[in-house]
Amino acid sequence: MSALKEVLAEVLERVKPKPKDREKVMGVLDSIKRKIEREAMAKGLNVRVEVEGSLAKDTWVSTDRDIDLFIIFPRGTPKDVLKEVGLQIAKSGVGEGWRLGYAEHPYVEATVDGYTVEIVPSVEIEEGERPVTAVDRTPLHTKFVLSKMDERMKDDVRLLKQFMKGIGVYGAELKVGGFSGYLCELLVINYGSFQRVLEEAAKWRGRTVIDYMKYYREGEPEQVFDSPLIIIDPVDRRRNAAAAVSLQCYATFIAAAERFIEGPSIEYFFPTKEEVDASKVLEKIKERGVSLVVVKTGCPILPSDVLWGEIQRSLMKIVGLFERYEFKVLDQKAWSDEEKHVVFIFELESRRLRLGKIRQGPKVWYHEDVKKFLGKHMEGKNVLAGPSIRGERWYVELRRKYTDAKELLEEELPILQMSKDVMEEVKKGFELYVDDEIAELCTKEPRLVEEIHVFLRKRPIWLK
Amino acid sequence: MSALKEVLAEVLERVKPKPKDREKVMGVLDSIKRKIEREAMAKGLNVRVEVEGSLAKDTWVSTDRDIDLFIIFPRGTPKDVLKEVGLQIAKSGVGEGWRLGYAEHPYVEATVDGYTVEIVPSVEIEEGERPVTAVDRTPLHTKFVLSKMDERMKDDVRLLKQFMKGIGVYGAELKVGGFSGYLCELLVINYGSFQRVLEEAAKWRGRTVIDYMKYYREGEPEQVFDSPLIIIDPVDRRRNAAAAVSLQCYATFIAAAERFIEGPSIEYFFPTKEEVDASKVLEKIKERGVSLVVVKTGCPILPSDVLWGEIQRSLMKIVGLFERYEFKVLDQKAWSDEEKHVVFIFELESRRLRLGKIRQGPKVWYHEDVKKFLGKHMEGKNVLAGPSIRGERWYVELRRKYTDAKELLEEELPILQMSKDVMEEVKKGFELYVDDEIAELCTKEPRLVEEIHVFLRKRPIWLK
Repeated sequence: MSALKEVLAEVLERVKPKPKDREKVMGVLDSIKRKIEREAMAKGLNVRVEVEGSLAKDTWVSTDRDIDLFIIFPRGTPKDVLKEVGLQIAKSGVGEGWRLGYAEHPYVEATVDGYTVEIVPSVEIEEGERPVTAVDRTPLHTKFVLSKMDERMKDDVRLLKQFMKGIGVYGAELKVGGFSGYLCELLVINYGSFQRVLEEAAKWRGRTVIDYMKYYREGEPEQVFDSPLIIIDPVDRRRNAAAAVSLQCYATFIAAAERFIEGPSIEYFFPTKEEVDASKVLEKIKERGVSLVVVKTGCPILPSDVLWGEIQRSLMKIVGLFERYEFKVLDQKAWSDEEKHVVFIFELESRRLRLGKIRQGPKVWYHEDVKKFLGKHMEGKNVLAGPSIRGERWYVELRRKYTDAKELLEEELPILQMSKDVMEEVKKGFELYVDDEIAELCTKEPRLVEEIHVFLRKRPIWLK
Repeated sequence: MSALKEVLAEVLERVKPKPKDREKVMGVLDSIKRKIEREAMAKGLNVRVEVEGSLAKDTWVSTDRDIDLFIIFPRGTPKDVLKEVGLQIAKSGVGEGWRLGYAEHPYVEATVDGYTVEIVPSVEIEEGERPVTAVDRTPLHTKFVLSKMDERMKDDVRLLKQFMKGIGVYGAELKVGGFSGYLCELLVINYGSFQRVLEEAAKWRGRTVIDYMKYYREGEPEQVFDSPLIIIDPVDRRRNAAAAVSLQCYATFIAAAERFIEGPSIEYFFPTKEEVDASKVLEKIKERGVSLVVVKTGCPILPSDVLWGEIQRSLMKIVGLFERYEFKVLDQKAWSDEEKHVVFIFELESRRLRLGKIRQGPKVWYHEDVKKFLGKHMEGKNVLAGPSIRGERWYVELRRKYTDAKELLEEELPILQMSKDVMEEVKKGFELYVDDEIAELCTKEPRLVEEIHVFLRKRPIWLK
């Protein structure tokens, strides 16, 4: 057996659900389904309850703990009915402890016997028909995938999913910006096998288009869609199923695919985690001579994608704040438990800046501008040097408002226009940790140790 | 009397030579001239000895201590004869202690009774004729200026020269890159008076052309000559008499002219020098939070313009060295007594850099480049972080060779390709002073205190 085959056999052994996995999930599933159907019948509703997602397509991996149930209303059911009645009967499936989730439209989420159960009201549509909301396409996805796959291909989807999980690009949610399960299925359907997907991905370049159904003419999709990866949804030609895939995840998948083909290893699927502790993180900070700034604040309670949208916008706002005051940001990252804390991590070129900053003035012959410039900068305690002429221009060196990144955040963060809900949390309070102080934070929040370690090391785990 | 007239009257009182000044210089002049003529006669040479320069044109200021004597050989005299015989009889004028000066061709320089005497062999040419060497035009300049000037204009030239001295833009030598005496005369001839020169200069912009004799069509000189200021030499249309004027001096003159017109003051002509000492300089360094690096080495013995050419090229080579290792140079300056020491002064954004530097690698899909990049940066003690993927590229963070500017110079200066003669001096030895250490240097070289003070203050003295 070749190295590749050996690796894949071992992975499959670990990810393919065993009969007892199947039995367990089917038990949970059936019980919920029956409850919903009973409730629907009691209300005299004409609906179908269907399993969707990887469970329906038999492409799930054994560690998955997700159950997707759809309550499908007849064509033409208005959105309001869906929301009201749909959610009512959805709740009946899970008893206490449910919460409302919001993607494009509301659904019920609950944890049952260790599974995350999502119960989604939707409206029946035909292939190619414009859906009422995005979820209405899901049953069509299930149908399409099942019609194209044999058992071997389902296993190949499992391999691909686990590969993507291992290299950190699995998941279409905003937090990851990676590949959805449906995308993994489409890739295997399009290229034929796990191995072919990786061989082909290794050849992807600046932009890639996959149009399995040949809906478009060559060159057309690039004009319609604006992402590095364009995979036309076979059940809806108007949709790029890969729209969520960020450039970062796209490039990471290409790079990992190429290296995996050249040297297959189980590490890509199940990366060995490094043992890290706070002292190792601090050592790394010292050794690298970096300046690390961490902002910790409360977490607004929001649906995951809404939350991560706000977090990422806020992250970039803080980067903008640093840059406005000429602190150079080398890297940044946000972390959240999606419950209590949001944490922003920044690596700066330097925590402290020199006192003076050089302000370029007008050329000497723009007399009106010169008059204004000199009028403004001839006096005042903020002028450290000049005004002076260099070449054809006036210059002046002014005292900076902030020379310490920590001071900048202390003063400006409470009045920074970030995303609304994050801003509210910041106004309630935030904590700052710089360099050595991060030891203290790591003690308070042990889950952050690994985040910071990965942030500092930067090298992907699979790169060996 | 207006403020302007009052100021000019006072300046003129101070700069216009008094009868006793004239008597003294004429005495020295006549004695030297007679000696040369006697020697020439003894050798049976058909030459004229003529006073040139500001003395001949009566545009000198009383503090000037320069005497220019020309030994003019008949047309067609070959260059070799000029060099040999010319220099022989030139020497006879000044006795011991002379030295050879080299501009474009050799001349004799000596100090006689406190005057700097230059005796220049040259060949007679006609107006518009191509000169054998640049100095051959000088007698034509004298003739031209005398033919255009009355007494009042000569005084106005004196005012203009003193103004240019006061603001630091007087002198065509490479060290200054400013306005020659002849340029001052041409400006007064062209615009009519000191006041008009300043009023017009205040209107100069990106480039200025003055073509008194109207040799060229509009727009033509800008295509032939490449300097901010183009003043066509009335005695030679092929020559830009303002070629030596740097952008810095050009802009400084414009700015000072404008402010003087708005608020005349004697300060522009005779700036009050600030009292400075080493402790004040150090205080300034601390207050401004700058990083100052000073390199002191020996001075090669060379004619002034050759020396300053080498010094300035070397200065820029050191700037280049700093930049190659990512130290940001905010300002630089060279100083020399033209005898013992050459000193380079640098203001850096920071003396120390962080340990790591980020090296951008190829995009992930350029597989050959990626292979090389990863091959090079996967191992090795210089890799601080990564390789990592950001967006579509690989990056790596490498350990810098130098994080301290002083260490960089200590190691790299001795092997830096600078101008030949400066390099030789550096190889013999150099001293480095950074920040606090500059106190020590100031004690050793008190003349440097003011240089460094001006370098730090940056504001022109006349800007009040």
